[in-house]
Amino acid sequence: MALRYPISYLCTNALRSAIFRASAITLQHVCSQHFCSQRSPPRRRSMATLVPPVTQDATSSKGPTAMVFMNMGGPSTTDEVGSFLSRLFADADLIPLGRLQSYLGPLISRRRTPKIQKQYAAIGGGSPIRKWSEYQSSEMCKILDQMSPETAPHTPYVAFRYANPLTEEMYTNLLKDGFGGGKGGRAVAFTQYPQYSCSTTGSSLNELWKWRNRLEGKGSTDTNPSGAITWSVIDRWPVHPGLVEAFARNVETQLATYPEEARKNVVLLFSAHSLPMSVVNRGDTYPAEVAATVYAVMQRLEFSNPYRLCWQSQVGPSAWLGAQTSDTVQEYVKKGQTDLILIPIAFTSDHIETLFELDQEVIHEAGHPGVKRAESLNGSRVFIEALADVAVNHLRSGESCSKQMGLRCQGCKSERCLEQKKFFLGQENLLAVR
Amino acid sequence: MALRYPISYLCTNALRSAIFRASAITLQHVCSQHFCSQRSPPRRRSMATLVPPVTQDATSSKGPTAMVFMNMGGPSTTDEVGSFLSRLFADADLIPLGRLQSYLGPLISRRRTPKIQKQYAAIGGGSPIRKWSEYQSSEMCKILDQMSPETAPHTPYVAFRYANPLTEEMYTNLLKDGFGGGKGGRAVAFTQYPQYSCSTTGSSLNELWKWRNRLEGKGSTDTNPSGAITWSVIDRWPVHPGLVEAFARNVETQLATYPEEARKNVVLLFSAHSLPMSVVNRGDTYPAEVAATVYAVMQRLEFSNPYRLCWQSQVGPSAWLGAQTSDTVQEYVKKGQTDLILIPIAFTSDHIETLFELDQEVIHEAGHPGVKRAESLNGSRVFIEALADVAVNHLRSGESCSKQMGLRCQGCKSERCLEQKKFFLGQENLLAVR
Repeated sequence: MALRYPISYLCTNALRSAIFRASAITLQHVCSQHFCSQRSPPRRRSMATLVPPVTQDATSSKGPTAMVFMNMGGPSTTDEVGSFLSRLFADADLIPLGRLQSYLGPLISRRRTPKIQKQYAAIGGGSPIRKWSEYQSSEMCKILDQMSPETAPHTPYVAFRYANPLTEEMYTNLLKDGFGGGKGGRAVAFTQYPQYSCSTTGSSLNELWKWRNRLEGKGSTDTNPSGAITWSVIDRWPVHPGLVEAFARNVETQLATYPEEARKNVVLLFSAHSLPMSVVNRGDTYPAEVAATVYAVMQRLEFSNPYRLCWQSQVGPSAWLGAQTSDTVQEYVKKGQTDLILIPIAFTSDHIETLFELDQEVIHEAGHPGVKRAESLNGSRVFIEALADVAVNHLRSGESCSKQMGLRCQGCKSERCLEQKKFFLGQENLLAVR
Repeated sequence: MALRYPISYLCTNALRSAIFRASAITLQHVCSQHFCSQRSPPRRRSMATLVPPVTQDATSSKGPTAMVFMNMGGPSTTDEVGSFLSRLFADADLIPLGRLQSYLGPLISRRRTPKIQKQYAAIGGGSPIRKWSEYQSSEMCKILDQMSPETAPHTPYVAFRYANPLTEEMYTNLLKDGFGGGKGGRAVAFTQYPQYSCSTTGSSLNELWKWRNRLEGKGSTDTNPSGAITWSVIDRWPVHPGLVEAFARNVETQLATYPEEARKNVVLLFSAHSLPMSVVNRGDTYPAEVAATVYAVMQRLEFSNPYRLCWQSQVGPSAWLGAQTSDTVQEYVKKGQTDLILIPIAFTSDHIETLFELDQEVIHEAGHPGVKRAESLNGSRVFIEALADVAVNHLRSGESCSKQMGLRCQGCKSERCLEQKKFFLGQENLLAVR
């Protein structure tokens, strides 16, 4: 019967709890030194001096492991907005503008820069995504060193698609730190989008694959003759119980701010970045995976409240997936339903779409104190433990990516996408012999 | 931590298994008599002679209970195609044609009748949905009598939206059988669409509410002065473990027909009836709930194969949700991926969209023996046990409908929908005093 489904979750949770309880005592010893060692050159099997608690009681037979957090990124200062937007509108994986991409992209990005600069100024002068990504990845690595001593030490890296640190900067650092470049080594590309889209994770993987080829040579994927890094990918984790728990707790915290008699009628509005219908109709898996996350969070909340999934940040004249978040809030307020919690469900830290679009536009325009937002995951301990659990399950699986990632979308015409998938799938042979 | 989520599943499963094991011995005694008594007038607390095993060891203090299976239905003969289509195109909940509905509806249905008659002729002269609905509902009631003696006897009814038995016929039978009409009584409207859409379950509920008012008077929902039937609604059950198990087993059965070396690369194509984008953008919950079902089935299958969710049966010039099933199959075959299993995921028995559209159009046009279809749930024992489990959980909950059903879609302008929701929500007060 269906027991295989829940039991696999139970085991994961029980295992994690046990490991975390056991590791809690030693974690503090690791933290400061480990974070400082992030950019130091790792030497295989000789990291003991840098991270003493790990290798004192571990064989570390497969370490070190580079853990690369991939995300779209955001400009840390308003000065970076121009270059951020120009990279963003140049990316046909994210914004398909056809043959005119190289002409239209720069045009649109130049025109939008002043407006977007004002938005970043309004949220404090820049995106907090770099700060959160560096914090989340380094904290996760500390936990990973405890949970998976055989692949320790785990060194955190961040690779953004449109802002610093860019993929090429991250890859250059990897090489500088002693990974690859003839010396072999192991790295995990860990998408920070829990739900896979060709526009987001797919684009980051295409970029990673491009820079891998440029900086380490193409080589045969079966034999890795060049001593390049062996890569694997955590490509999606939409219903990981820890992720779901982290979301649910932030919802509960916000629900608790309503008077008790009103609480059960507050509407939960899960909001995710929308996609153009051309991407949805091509077969992108993102809408279905976002829906799976939402359903899992509602199961965890025992369907305590009515809810809807809606989609934000549509731009331009083409058709995008709806219902739109801003319309949704307006319509419910008009219907007299003024207790609403917006829940950013497809991004793991704050960014312009939460801090400006939701907080300063949608909620401000609603003009009602009952319209609120659940906090983003940011520094949530439950979330960071979930990241470590996702990572350790991946490291133990021996898989280079999910089966699902191997399948191109039905409407995909991208040769780059095809080659990229072949590359990452091919890494599995190398993992087997490590 | 996230344990509440899996444990709730475990309990449901464990409970069901235990109950089913205990009841298996006596079930055979109930079957023949119970089915024959379907149309006999039930007398409250006096059904012992008809269903001996139930009342021998039960108080049956809340029975009898009418279990009404709601579905769209289909013409049982080609002669019924015309009236079926004319009802279907008259339904603005399903096919919104605006102010011209009463003119355009009959026009389109008359024009389409000959073509659709040929399709029904090609699948054996009619839809099997009535046969399956009557079988599933009566089999479920037999199990329910064992699982929930306090609400027994459970009498099965079928109410179709566009074909016989129509809602008015079902309601007339209910009254004839001694439910309502001044005598009170209890009925459950059990949607046979696992995932809720305003176009399907919503339309059936609007129709049920209309006929309830016509045949039993409007009355106050708080006091039920007219002695009308007390209604509750099972409005969605997209990830019930038994439903998921039934789907998964049919997929596994079809997977087993491929040579072992090819099996793990077969692509699973979940196919659901599409919706117009106008309905999706209004806030209809169907796409997200279908995605939740798909994800749950893939979890149960331990993500053994790559998969996609696609959408079928788009008609007319307006925009519908994609990717389209037929395009998907064609594109994958073109890409050389010719091992594909189509899985009807949003309907619980065979109908024209499986037997004709998938089997005789999509699969035939693919022209490759590797393109197959998983069997529909139809007479699956696991599925029928799941129905009983869904029902018993509902009967014990004391809820008149889900919290989610109480919330109108953000873009909803339908007063009928508003009043219908108020009515069913209001029934909860009556359930509390029963």
